[in-house]
Amino acid sequence: MGGPADENGYPMIESVKGGVVASAGFRTASIHCGLKSDGASRDLAVLLSDRPTQSAAMFTTNRVKSAAVRWSEKRVRENNIRAIVVNAGNANACTGKRGEEDAERTARVAASLLGLAPSQVFLASTGIIGVPLPVEKIEYGLRSAVPRLSGGIEAGEAFALAIMTTDTVPKSVAFRFQASRKQLTLGGATKGVGMIAPNMATMLCFLTTDASISQAALDRALRDAVEQSFNRVTVDGHMSTNDTVVILANGAAGNELIEEGTPDYATFCHTLDIACLSLAKMMVRDGEGATRMIRVEVTGALAREDATKAARAVANSPLVKAAVNGGDPNWGRIISAAGYSGAEMEEERAKLWIGDLLVFDTGSPTGCPKVELAAFVQKPEVHFRIDLGMGAESDTYWTCDLSKEYVSINADYHT
Amino acid sequence: MGGPADENGYPMIESVKGGVVASAGFRTASIHCGLKSDGASRDLAVLLSDRPTQSAAMFTTNRVKSAAVRWSEKRVRENNIRAIVVNAGNANACTGKRGEEDAERTARVAASLLGLAPSQVFLASTGIIGVPLPVEKIEYGLRSAVPRLSGGIEAGEAFALAIMTTDTVPKSVAFRFQASRKQLTLGGATKGVGMIAPNMATMLCFLTTDASISQAALDRALRDAVEQSFNRVTVDGHMSTNDTVVILANGAAGNELIEEGTPDYATFCHTLDIACLSLAKMMVRDGEGATRMIRVEVTGALAREDATKAARAVANSPLVKAAVNGGDPNWGRIISAAGYSGAEMEEERAKLWIGDLLVFDTGSPTGCPKVELAAFVQKPEVHFRIDLGMGAESDTYWTCDLSKEYVSINADYHT
Repeated sequence: MGGPADENGYPMIESVKGGVVASAGFRTASIHCGLKSDGASRDLAVLLSDRPTQSAAMFTTNRVKSAAVRWSEKRVRENNIRAIVVNAGNANACTGKRGEEDAERTARVAASLLGLAPSQVFLASTGIIGVPLPVEKIEYGLRSAVPRLSGGIEAGEAFALAIMTTDTVPKSVAFRFQASRKQLTLGGATKGVGMIAPNMATMLCFLTTDASISQAALDRALRDAVEQSFNRVTVDGHMSTNDTVVILANGAAGNELIEEGTPDYATFCHTLDIACLSLAKMMVRDGEGATRMIRVEVTGALAREDATKAARAVANSPLVKAAVNGGDPNWGRIISAAGYSGAEMEEERAKLWIGDLLVFDTGSPTGCPKVELAAFVQKPEVHFRIDLGMGAESDTYWTCDLSKEYVSINADYHT
Repeated sequence: MGGPADENGYPMIESVKGGVVASAGFRTASIHCGLKSDGASRDLAVLLSDRPTQSAAMFTTNRVKSAAVRWSEKRVRENNIRAIVVNAGNANACTGKRGEEDAERTARVAASLLGLAPSQVFLASTGIIGVPLPVEKIEYGLRSAVPRLSGGIEAGEAFALAIMTTDTVPKSVAFRFQASRKQLTLGGATKGVGMIAPNMATMLCFLTTDASISQAALDRALRDAVEQSFNRVTVDGHMSTNDTVVILANGAAGNELIEEGTPDYATFCHTLDIACLSLAKMMVRDGEGATRMIRVEVTGALAREDATKAARAVANSPLVKAAVNGGDPNWGRIISAAGYSGAEMEEERAKLWIGDLLVFDTGSPTGCPKVELAAFVQKPEVHFRIDLGMGAESDTYWTCDLSKEYVSINADYHT
């Protein structure tokens, strides 16, 4: 592998600017075409690879899928993607046959402007469900955007802005790393701060890399990275119809083809894992109305699945999340959420830490003073650890607190 | 069966006052013993049957159970219960060995004051988790309450007040009905407005009847009634450690013993079903911070289980519940919650009604105007019906909206 390594023996990776266009051979442009009602914010973005790509993607498992998801599932199977068109402000979901026609028309218009076939255009949509897509706006939006395609840092930052809905900050990352003496780059941007639930969420995530990597290796790497990042965050347990994570690899870096099982593959996966986890945590930190991030760690589980169930139940409990919002160490709610999660557990074996403090020890409260505990619950990042005392498996979820602001945002989003 | 019948052929049942002591041969007393911090509200209640009872009960399925639940599970198996002691303000859960000793001491003190064996005393607790029960307060509370036991209407109403925690109104019912030419009574009281989830909730429900009924019939009738009432309501999907529904039947009405499969059994079940559903709906209507009740009806499901899953997912979605709080007909959230519920469904076969209006028809929006829809979402009782178009099975859940008030209540409950 060569080059400097971190404490785990992985090659050092360096954070760089530019998001999705930090990787060589990618350009983007984004504009306001009228889908967002403020009349100003960017709501349409195009991302182009100047050369052919290998691609991999994961989509919502919701039985109700947006027209964009249905379209793009086919494009990933064909593995001949050159461009991505994303719109924010309208999900084009629950829109029936008309929605499918609108998606196809979007791809056709973009393809003709870019000199591609429609089947080379990947689509993603996010926003209100059940309202027909104003496809004429998208059409003139595309005509305005395509001539402005650029690989500059500002264009990359604008991409992350264009895909936002109720997000309050753009979310992008890019990392440079070495593989076989070549410098490679991996960049990404994500959106999604509500309707966030395990197994993806109302989230869109676009990743690019200039690495040369086989489709099989890319697909495996993406699945593993998503499982440990986007599938471990939750804002409100509501899974969307539009969730999409996609990665395009265009080989512009000129490295030797990365295959599964090689040292370069390990380096690539390490970088992709860090990128996905960074983006996932940005989503939670920006969760609708969130004031604190909560890390729920479950250890000592009999099976990995038990750890997952217990961590997810705690992370999804509105009672736990409201208590954290109040800075209140109401730890009984944490234990009782684990108790109903379906995880194998016995109260007499379980322990709970809030921050550094043990509050519940094998069935009994430790008598830890409330004021000490409150200090840990009032931090920007709150850490709960439950040790089930049943085995050696563990898992971690990230979530945010539940605030009045979450209710405000979601009571009024539609109108 | 005799006597006047309703339109389904069931004997008429008459609503009466008195709650748990409307049934002959029951007495109650309740006082403030210092568990509720306001220094005034009743927080301890005793309910006594003057004669032996048949009993049946259902408890939380949470793996973490209160000391009261552990104690009372044994008492129901022995089927020799004469008295119930309930306290509100402290759950006596996650309190370890000390919690069990405190529960036993409560039963011992009550038994000695009532001239019973400790094993004849059923216990229930509700309130904060993880704080040792102030058992001395309970002890002098019992000494003050027992001499005041009464069968009067006011005592019955006070019982419903004493079991409240964050409830804003007391919840009790009583019904008189005829069986084999005898007049029978069934009464009940319930509490619970947060931590309410299917398969019971932070809820306590106490039912009494002066019917003579076999233990087997009583147990069957209770399970069936709970399944269709308390197990079909949800406030926040968080299941508590203390949930308890118990019924005592003391035979004071002198009717012929009711056995399963008889006309009298059908009448008894009908009355019990109505009592449980009435109490369950009162809980939802008083849900923490609730401003509207929501009925989620799913029809046309392939299997009953699919209907249950879809109805539950919609009823538990914070996004759906926040939209209803805003009086906002954001129906895409309803369809997408059904979509991720795990129920067998195809978007192209599904229909959705809000109130009387069809908004989504076999895959497409009907174009129903938002202002007409909003009128139905702004009613005190909102009705959603999803027809999955897959089969003939159905199910219904009741829930409430999610308000800023819910967050306030739960951010500050502990401290």
